[in-house]
Amino acid sequence: MNKDRIILGIDPGTTVMGYGLLKVTNNKAELMTLGVLELHKYGDHYLKLKKIFERVVQLVDSYHPDELAIEAPFYGKNVQSMLKLGRAQGVAMAAALSRSIPIFEYAPLRIKQAITGNGRASKEQVALLLQQMLKMKEMPDYLDATDGLAAAYCHFLQNQKLNIGTGVKSWKEFVNKNPGRLKK
Amino acid sequence: MNKDRIILGIDPGTTVMGYGLLKVTNNKAELMTLGVLELHKYGDHYLKLKKIFERVVQLVDSYHPDELAIEAPFYGKNVQSMLKLGRAQGVAMAAALSRSIPIFEYAPLRIKQAITGNGRASKEQVALLLQQMLKMKEMPDYLDATDGLAAAYCHFLQNQKLNIGTGVKSWKEFVNKNPGRLKK
Repeated sequence: MNKDRIILGIDPGTTVMGYGLLKVTNNKAELMTLGVLELHKYGDHYLKLKKIFERVVQLVDSYHPDELAIEAPFYGKNVQSMLKLGRAQGVAMAAALSRSIPIFEYAPLRIKQAITGNGRASKEQVALLLQQMLKMKEMPDYLDATDGLAAAYCHFLQNQKLNIGTGVKSWKEFVNKNPGRLKK
Repeated sequence: MNKDRIILGIDPGTTVMGYGLLKVTNNKAELMTLGVLELHKYGDHYLKLKKIFERVVQLVDSYHPDELAIEAPFYGKNVQSMLKLGRAQGVAMAAALSRSIPIFEYAPLRIKQAITGNGRASKEQVALLLQQMLKMKEMPDYLDATDGLAAAYCHFLQNQKLNIGTGVKSWKEFVNKNPGRLKK
């Protein structure tokens, strides 16, 4: 059982950031909005980071999500690209953390697996399935938007599967957050 | 000539974050404060990031720095550690960017070189020289604090050397920021 809540999904990058918002009511997910932040037009590295931070803050303040689901690869081409990606993730996370919104990370393969049943599915396949499941009339211009939305939907499916409404990711975390509920 | 201003120096890490604040008046740098944020006591990765963000926001709101100087290695052991470091840098940067404070990055070797004349100097040597130059009575308990301060001092010396007060790092940047001053 999925508790009623709003999930913000983000696919952070330094060229384009994709995002999508899902409203979960009565165990069903409904699309609120999705979009992209185009970063390639900003030459300055810090300006890109600033824009990411501002957009996430704006999304948080406009839609009041309860949770942030983020697409996060655990490996990359090289240390340089991982440092850059880490920074992009960091500023996006800071925006959520500044509002005490819990963060949940999902690897790209896991997101694809959860939505299409195939960890090697294409971005187009993920987008098509999301379009069907969420009854979207049109496909967005950028697949990065559906990538962001996919992170949110994966998080929704994850809780569906776990059948819990505690907002915690593991038993260890649940125990840490609920020390009073342990039998001494 | 160094313009009068306040520089916040940060050495971000996921175990300890060091910071130092310098006040530049009449071309001289004076220590305002320095310290560390111990992160190893927080088990949760996101809680660490949140603490970094909150501390930098707090420093910014308490001391009103005009610029952020950050120690930033350009390479690392592996992609995993670089992703983590990037996130720590990202949340620290977000705190500065949210207040429109410009950021300047310096590699560890460059900071050591600027302060001691030797890019391979030890943390202790850097700390001792900073203690002398800034007339600090006591050495801090953690050398991470002086590492943060060293980033601020390196930025101060950098502007000393460039002999400009424009707040830009390179000629290219200066030209970009001042298009009207170019001869057509």
